[in-house]
Amino acid sequence: MNKSIIRFILCRVLQFEGLFMLLPVIVSLFYKEKVGWVFVIISASCLVLGGIGANFKPKSKVFYAREGFVVVSLSWILLSLVGALPFVVSGEIPSYVDAVFETVSGFTTTGASILTDVEALSKTAMFWRCFTNWIGGMGVLVFIMAVLPLSGSRNMHIMRAESTGPEVGKLVPRVKTTATILYGIYFGLSLILITCFLFAGLPLYNALIISFSTMGTGGFADLNKSLGGYSYSAQTISMIFMILCGVNFNAYFLLLRRKMKDFFKLEEVRVYLFIVFLSTAAITIQIHDGFASMREAIHHSLFQVASIISTTGFSTVDFDKWPMLSKTILLFLMVVGGCAGSTCGGIKVSRLLILVRSLKREISHLTHPRSVKKVKLNGQTVSEETVGSVLSFMIAYVLVIMVSTFIVSADNLDFTTSFSAVLANIGNIGPGLGLVGATGNYGMLSDLSKVTLIFDMLAGRLEVYPMLVLFYLGTWRKS
Amino acid sequence: MNKSIIRFILCRVLQFEGLFMLLPVIVSLFYKEKVGWVFVIISASCLVLGGIGANFKPKSKVFYAREGFVVVSLSWILLSLVGALPFVVSGEIPSYVDAVFETVSGFTTTGASILTDVEALSKTAMFWRCFTNWIGGMGVLVFIMAVLPLSGSRNMHIMRAESTGPEVGKLVPRVKTTATILYGIYFGLSLILITCFLFAGLPLYNALIISFSTMGTGGFADLNKSLGGYSYSAQTISMIFMILCGVNFNAYFLLLRRKMKDFFKLEEVRVYLFIVFLSTAAITIQIHDGFASMREAIHHSLFQVASIISTTGFSTVDFDKWPMLSKTILLFLMVVGGCAGSTCGGIKVSRLLILVRSLKREISHLTHPRSVKKVKLNGQTVSEETVGSVLSFMIAYVLVIMVSTFIVSADNLDFTTSFSAVLANIGNIGPGLGLVGATGNYGMLSDLSKVTLIFDMLAGRLEVYPMLVLFYLGTWRKS
Repeated sequence: MNKSIIRFILCRVLQFEGLFMLLPVIVSLFYKEKVGWVFVIISASCLVLGGIGANFKPKSKVFYAREGFVVVSLSWILLSLVGALPFVVSGEIPSYVDAVFETVSGFTTTGASILTDVEALSKTAMFWRCFTNWIGGMGVLVFIMAVLPLSGSRNMHIMRAESTGPEVGKLVPRVKTTATILYGIYFGLSLILITCFLFAGLPLYNALIISFSTMGTGGFADLNKSLGGYSYSAQTISMIFMILCGVNFNAYFLLLRRKMKDFFKLEEVRVYLFIVFLSTAAITIQIHDGFASMREAIHHSLFQVASIISTTGFSTVDFDKWPMLSKTILLFLMVVGGCAGSTCGGIKVSRLLILVRSLKREISHLTHPRSVKKVKLNGQTVSEETVGSVLSFMIAYVLVIMVSTFIVSADNLDFTTSFSAVLANIGNIGPGLGLVGATGNYGMLSDLSKVTLIFDMLAGRLEVYPMLVLFYLGTWRKS
Repeated sequence: MNKSIIRFILCRVLQFEGLFMLLPVIVSLFYKEKVGWVFVIISASCLVLGGIGANFKPKSKVFYAREGFVVVSLSWILLSLVGALPFVVSGEIPSYVDAVFETVSGFTTTGASILTDVEALSKTAMFWRCFTNWIGGMGVLVFIMAVLPLSGSRNMHIMRAESTGPEVGKLVPRVKTTATILYGIYFGLSLILITCFLFAGLPLYNALIISFSTMGTGGFADLNKSLGGYSYSAQTISMIFMILCGVNFNAYFLLLRRKMKDFFKLEEVRVYLFIVFLSTAAITIQIHDGFASMREAIHHSLFQVASIISTTGFSTVDFDKWPMLSKTILLFLMVVGGCAGSTCGGIKVSRLLILVRSLKREISHLTHPRSVKKVKLNGQTVSEETVGSVLSFMIAYVLVIMVSTFIVSADNLDFTTSFSAVLANIGNIGPGLGLVGATGNYGMLSDLSKVTLIFDMLAGRLEVYPMLVLFYLGTWRKS
């Protein structure tokens, strides 16, 4: 383990966090909130400490896969531990565990909250809370990679550990350029979204924070009623962008390059949109009686489906009151999540496709032992290594869910609450069912459960392995 | 697909079912119950129809893996469809779907019941109900194999499809002899158990039926209070044998052959006993306040742990009232089940060990890509093919659970009920939590849910693939 290079990158991450914190400072100047000073002091400390640390260049440039995993998971933990400080120092979230929960929930774009009354937060703190959603969406290290000059092989290992999906698709030969293009698309879409919100009549502040939460598919909002407190048109705009952010960002690159043929080959995107359509139809049929018009029923079901499959977690109505079948569909969507290479959580549509196809192949192999079939995705053969790693990923995912449910159930809440809390956090959605549903929050959980869910959120966002690697003793042994 | 040989074996299965039904006829003579006539007529029909069909020898002796899967799943379906007839014809369970549910639950040793009042059944029908538990425990086709002369390769394919666990361990080179030894041990243990119950003061009838349910780890009992209505000593005897039946039967063969060294190498058995110990300790700590003495608390926790991990499903108290953590431990045990090669359901301890170890290896491989490690079990290397098939099995298991929960939730019952119903049925346990808990039953479910759970019980008992193979079109294609 090359510890010096990890120290070096962590210091860089600290510097960037210091820079990010200057944005809420600007907000505080605008709204004349004294809490801005807290951000100034913490931001300055980050910049100074990070600067001093980064001054000592790493002794060795050795950088392998395990350094990639460790640096990614430690960066996310560091970001969260430091990002939680303003909430505690300002007294807006007095408990440090609660503040870390809220910050991890932000960076991992989960959107789960321990706050009973989000409307009590200052505008500055709320801005920081929602901004973490935006930063986390595309990935912090990918951002740093796009901005700073880092060597090639190092980039690849970091990108592989931080990006979502079974395979990391490089858009162009250079990893750094890929990162820049992805962030470009992300930034561009965010600007369009902000403009749309402004046209829909939202004040600039609200347009900004809801855009952050929507683009990162995070789900933090400034109202206790989530997006239920916003206008119909704002909800519709958010809904469209949630669906868009669930798509593999490579698809937008293909669109920009006008490679329409390759675009339409993207099976994952087609299946993703089909799932959205089917779930919305199924839920609409079940809930339309409770709404004034069919149009309204479709609006709310589509909004909720988009919000859950993109793992955003916004809500317009209390879906916990819907029929059990509708709620089960939503639980499914929590597990599935969006496409690989999107800002979403969940296991991703491409993994689901690979799982189902490898299962079909297994049955075919059992009945015709001599047949040799390949698993295909997007018209291309998936390597056996990827198939194996998808299977292992799924097992790891299920095991983490089981162990977490076990720990959370020690709080003696009902099973629906414990289980859906874990699913909603590892899937980076936010609200679950029962006590942690759309109208509830995670505040009443014990610290042990909160720490477990913090682990789950990070495990969900980083796709399990980087977090498990930290606990594997072999990682820290000299090779 | 060699259909003629499948037809031939199914006819043999029908004949054996006819023979099995003669036992309840004897019971009916003893208790002078007229329902015995129903069994006489159905038994005779089975013998005649099966005899006629088996008279036409199969045209071809070709028998491959897929014939093995298909014949096993179709045999179990046939057994259940016919085994349900006495309940319907006698009017004791008027609905055919209900009767099939009860019979599948019997053969698969699930022990889930649609009966609100089991005490209303006639002694004859109750005997048949519990006897299905005993037949299903070790497997019907393995029984036929032990009795009838069948060729070697055919036996292997059938044994592989019907036995439990990731690998089929042949005790001796000949499959037929292996089957005979296994049934011998099963029969011997059953005799010991019946004797113990008689010594504990149970009438012969009760000693027989409770022995059937205990040995098959099925869980059918003749009282609404399950084993809560039996004496303390009867409960203790049943508890010991449930734990014994959760052990890999190969272990008893090693003991009989006095191969103590090999016996103590069986890691799976050690881990199984350790899980029993740990779960009992954890539950006792949580529930001891509710009992008069510590001894009683230990008795009831150990009984419940033994009952659930061996997937029997007997209960002495209403464990649904226990703290959530205890219930979650029980849900875990439902998923795990006993050892491979036992009469239990669940995914089996050996699969759990292989899963956890392959996961550890995956992490080790991620951090040290050049390392080559093997997954080991019982001190021996597990082949990569077995590791792969365990991973696929697990995925298939999870997918079946997901789809089933989805269908069952259409009944609009609470999530705990729907989810635990599926877990309890695919795991072949019987009672779940909520409305299908220890004091509840499956009677109120819709027919669609019942059919889904029937599929789950069969999928659980036959370890998923034989049932999935039926629905795979390629199975029926000419090769």
